[in-house]
Amino acid sequence: MKARPQFVAPDRRAVTAYPSRSWRTWLFGRPLSTADAPHQAIGRTVGLAVFASDALSSTAYATQEILTVLALAGAAAFAHAFPISITIVALLIIVTVSYEQTIHAYPGGGGAYTVARDNLGELPAQVAAAALLTDYVLTVSVSVSSGVAQVCSAVPAVYGHRVALSVMCVVLIMIVNLRGVRESGVVFAVPTYFFIGMMVLTVGVAFFRYLQGSLGLVTNPPSLDAAGPLRPLTLFLLLHAFSNGTTALTGIEAISNGITAFKEPRSHNAGVTLLWMAAILTSLFLGITFLATHIGAIPSEQETVVSQLARTVFGGRGFPYLLAIAATTLILVMAANTAYADFPRLAALQAGDGFLPKQLTYRGSRLVFSRGIGALALLASALIIVFQASVTSLIPLYAIGVFLSFTLSQAGMTRRWWKVGRLAPGQEIHERGSVLRYERGWVAKMCINGFGAVLTAIVALVFAITKFHDGAWVVVVIIPLLVSLFFAIHRHYRDMAARLSLDDWGAPSRIRRHRVILPISGVHRGTVAALRYARALSDDITAVHVSLDPAEAGAITQKWGLWGNGVRLVILESPYRLLLEPVLDYIKRIADTRQPNETITIVVPQFVPRRRWHNLLHAQTAVLLRLALLFRPGIVITNVPYHVKLEAGSGLAEETV
Amino acid sequence: MKARPQFVAPDRRAVTAYPSRSWRTWLFGRPLSTADAPHQAIGRTVGLAVFASDALSSTAYATQEILTVLALAGAAAFAHAFPISITIVALLIIVTVSYEQTIHAYPGGGGAYTVARDNLGELPAQVAAAALLTDYVLTVSVSVSSGVAQVCSAVPAVYGHRVALSVMCVVLIMIVNLRGVRESGVVFAVPTYFFIGMMVLTVGVAFFRYLQGSLGLVTNPPSLDAAGPLRPLTLFLLLHAFSNGTTALTGIEAISNGITAFKEPRSHNAGVTLLWMAAILTSLFLGITFLATHIGAIPSEQETVVSQLARTVFGGRGFPYLLAIAATTLILVMAANTAYADFPRLAALQAGDGFLPKQLTYRGSRLVFSRGIGALALLASALIIVFQASVTSLIPLYAIGVFLSFTLSQAGMTRRWWKVGRLAPGQEIHERGSVLRYERGWVAKMCINGFGAVLTAIVALVFAITKFHDGAWVVVVIIPLLVSLFFAIHRHYRDMAARLSLDDWGAPSRIRRHRVILPISGVHRGTVAALRYARALSDDITAVHVSLDPAEAGAITQKWGLWGNGVRLVILESPYRLLLEPVLDYIKRIADTRQPNETITIVVPQFVPRRRWHNLLHAQTAVLLRLALLFRPGIVITNVPYHVKLEAGSGLAEETV
Repeated sequence: MKARPQFVAPDRRAVTAYPSRSWRTWLFGRPLSTADAPHQAIGRTVGLAVFASDALSSTAYATQEILTVLALAGAAAFAHAFPISITIVALLIIVTVSYEQTIHAYPGGGGAYTVARDNLGELPAQVAAAALLTDYVLTVSVSVSSGVAQVCSAVPAVYGHRVALSVMCVVLIMIVNLRGVRESGVVFAVPTYFFIGMMVLTVGVAFFRYLQGSLGLVTNPPSLDAAGPLRPLTLFLLLHAFSNGTTALTGIEAISNGITAFKEPRSHNAGVTLLWMAAILTSLFLGITFLATHIGAIPSEQETVVSQLARTVFGGRGFPYLLAIAATTLILVMAANTAYADFPRLAALQAGDGFLPKQLTYRGSRLVFSRGIGALALLASALIIVFQASVTSLIPLYAIGVFLSFTLSQAGMTRRWWKVGRLAPGQEIHERGSVLRYERGWVAKMCINGFGAVLTAIVALVFAITKFHDGAWVVVVIIPLLVSLFFAIHRHYRDMAARLSLDDWGAPSRIRRHRVILPISGVHRGTVAALRYARALSDDITAVHVSLDPAEAGAITQKWGLWGNGVRLVILESPYRLLLEPVLDYIKRIADTRQPNETITIVVPQFVPRRRWHNLLHAQTAVLLRLALLFRPGIVITNVPYHVKLEAGSGLAEETV
Repeated sequence: MKARPQFVAPDRRAVTAYPSRSWRTWLFGRPLSTADAPHQAIGRTVGLAVFASDALSSTAYATQEILTVLALAGAAAFAHAFPISITIVALLIIVTVSYEQTIHAYPGGGGAYTVARDNLGELPAQVAAAALLTDYVLTVSVSVSSGVAQVCSAVPAVYGHRVALSVMCVVLIMIVNLRGVRESGVVFAVPTYFFIGMMVLTVGVAFFRYLQGSLGLVTNPPSLDAAGPLRPLTLFLLLHAFSNGTTALTGIEAISNGITAFKEPRSHNAGVTLLWMAAILTSLFLGITFLATHIGAIPSEQETVVSQLARTVFGGRGFPYLLAIAATTLILVMAANTAYADFPRLAALQAGDGFLPKQLTYRGSRLVFSRGIGALALLASALIIVFQASVTSLIPLYAIGVFLSFTLSQAGMTRRWWKVGRLAPGQEIHERGSVLRYERGWVAKMCINGFGAVLTAIVALVFAITKFHDGAWVVVVIIPLLVSLFFAIHRHYRDMAARLSLDDWGAPSRIRRHRVILPISGVHRGTVAALRYARALSDDITAVHVSLDPAEAGAITQKWGLWGNGVRLVILESPYRLLLEPVLDYIKRIADTRQPNETITIVVPQFVPRRRWHNLLHAQTAVLLRLALLFRPGIVITNVPYHVKLEAGSGLAEETV
């Protein structure tokens, strides 16, 4: 026996294992080596396209959401829309500033999750993760469904196929994303910049005509859908309109979760992109709201506010109008792409912390977290199928999660400023995701973040309450369930690590006795090959045969006498014609008398037929034994394959092991 | 090394492995020991109920089938019905006598299959088996569908559920049959004897009133459905009516396939039962045909001939009439039970000859061929689902198979008489299923069987041609396909036997070198336990680690230095983040240089988590490796399970192998 703590330098082999070419190469592109990772990082232009499409898409409906609530108090209340928008933009600025700080403080990404984890603890972090993951799945389902719904109103014939069409969209976006973040970014940049261009054009022309005095009012606006008598313009109604308008903020967190996708200097690039995104979002949102109230646009199910604005600006349903509408439809679908960029990254971060299956941290052949992308596509498709691609059913579930994550992120930053304030200048604390240093003005920043936390918490609460009956209860139920699941997974990994740890573990002594049991159904070349293998393992071998038929047992006994190499044969009689149970019983009895330094190996002959379907013609005793014994400690099962594909009687050595 | 041809007396253990009590015990009854088999055999009374229900059920419709064809030539043609019936009965007597002889000549059962096998060769035998098996599946589908159709015409509300209801019936009859042939026989004897009683009563009362002169004609008979002008009464029409009436013969073969179900003396009991069945069948069929034409019954879709007869005899739709109709409905469903008795027995015989999977020869806990019963239920249910329980679609597929098997059986018996005629008195030839001795009058018997063969062949041909377009082509296609499948299975078994045979085989020499490869993903207790096991196998061990991350590889190398017992560690770098392929490549390279007396074992550590769902949280490398390597000759894969269910750090010996 060799002395134990003896260091051996390992062989290190550069392996040629290049992934084999297949349909995958064609679909997803050639595999990328781990060393290629830096080349896959994206710049600010592509980054804006990937991460801003979700946020920017909200300009297509945020104004309308405000006007819809104000309409309850009559058209006169529309005058409050612009002041409400200003308030929302103020909140947006607070949240943006907060995320800007987060991006620099947490360069490893993760946004609300990382901030909550490092400052508030595991539970808030998991809540933030559950909220965000749920919301990303909803983003994909809602945006794809709404895009397909727009196509359906143009081409009613496809309505019957909307579910299949939506799932196809989800799969298509999945495939493009599996080709790599860089490639998907370039592909999806076109529609995003097309939308930005068209909206800037629309708002720009509108202001030009406004200043010229030639803008005028909407011609033939849709009628105001008055449901019941007008309600008074209460504070509650204003608050409701405000919270409805905050959908403009959804997607603002996307960049903070995806920092790792950016080129170095990551935090800088991500931060600049965030500011650009916020600037575009703010100006478009304010511009559209101001102009919509000015031209007398009416919120309606029949025609969107953006459509009314566009046809007023461009003087009818001409070519520019159609382009603007097409761009709006496209950006709604593109919002899904942001979720594809963020969901897998967040899931990988969580998996790295042991709260989701570790497999989500593996990067696929194109260096993206392919399993996360696949999981998102699967979940979103399931949701689309369950809700039959109905936007109306899906929308109430949406946005609660994002505001919950905003609240946790802001609260985490508040706590961080408090910790920063406690530090002496020059002192540093290294946390898991960031480094803490003293900063001036921490009190003001803490107050801003605290105020933001309170506001976003109120919005989340208003959402949950007002939409509870429409389906928001689903989210309220699902988030706690997800959090429990995350902790169950975490407990398992922690538990496994403890149980597998070598610290303070007495190494087991060497195996002194090795008993081999060889179940045989007959005596043939497969059995003899298995016996040959068994003899290489140990001298303590027992062959076991379950007998249903005394005549057959006699024949086997006789043959074993010739071919059994003197190995003991036990015949187990089975009056109830059971095949597996007698062997299991026998093994169990032997295992019960096992000594600590003794191990038992079951060597099962298994012939491998030439064709797979031939397996149907044989009782799969080997497979069944394995399944039955896998959960019994102290027993090793070995299948000795005997390949019958070679020439019968050729006696080639390859035939046997 | 021990001397090889050394005889060792085997241990013979009476095993206590009693099947565990479960829902199965409740559903199917307590398991029966093989020694109980004689007590499960059935007598003549139960035997008649089990095997005659198929044949007797045909009296419910055979007369009507004749009249329907004759109606094409007008009501005057009905006078030919009775003479046609006499001819059919003559054919029935020939077939019965032939099967009576078969039963005594082939006491092991199998009817047409065994007779064809021993006298005509493998191909005709497999054709007979394919024809009969197909027909048994059809018998179950047709009889259950027609029973359910009768229920549907009484209770129209269940029509929408007819498929589910039919499948439920199939499953119910399956369960009763799985309880054992004796028990199912007793259960199903009640409806069969009820039907016989009611029919004897109906026919008896009818003849009494006929002799008395008080029988009269049917009141309000259904109108004759005249489709087009009357056709002349040609020989073809008479032949068509004849072949339609031969449905009375279906089921006559049932006893010959099920001889082994009878008590000893088997052949005698089976033969007596066959004669009884033929006698009842003949008298009921002739009686009903005679009476139906006498009372002026009209074949119609609206009311069956049996119903017209019953209400004429019993003077209206009173209680006796209703009982007669209920008995008829029941016997139609009971016909399925005969198929459940025969299909598994025939399949087991075929499987014993190696033309069907061997598993069909296993007897279940209640000593019946449970897998055959299950297969029949599955196939019949599939057919019912595909044809939506429509009797009209299923009936054209029916009866061709039976007549094909009649033909082959008669032809086989003809050949057998020829062989018997060649023998000298006192000489004996032992064939697989029977013993040949000289018999007087073999020429006459040969002629009768030969004539029967020609007649039944004509009927089979007429069936195939007249019903070809209605769906009989399905059977004409399926039988050759089945026969090819049977031969493919047979080739596989013969091939396997040859390749596994020890005759003329040089025994492989003892394994001289045993190389062990140990793939590890980390160094933990599971790995150390696997290493400990590997060291019990051989001194030639190589641990292999696939490295995605140099830092991790470094940590593993260091830990291995402490815990690796001096065993060599190879680090395989994987730039494309593949986990399995580098190990497979490495193993392949080693396997390629393998010497004849060398064997390679891959020892894979596999931890067994406490709960099954935890497996989702781990990459199943062990399972994937096994699947990838199973088809490579010369390699044995061993999973060394490490059970984490015991207390962490308890150091119990059971934790490791």
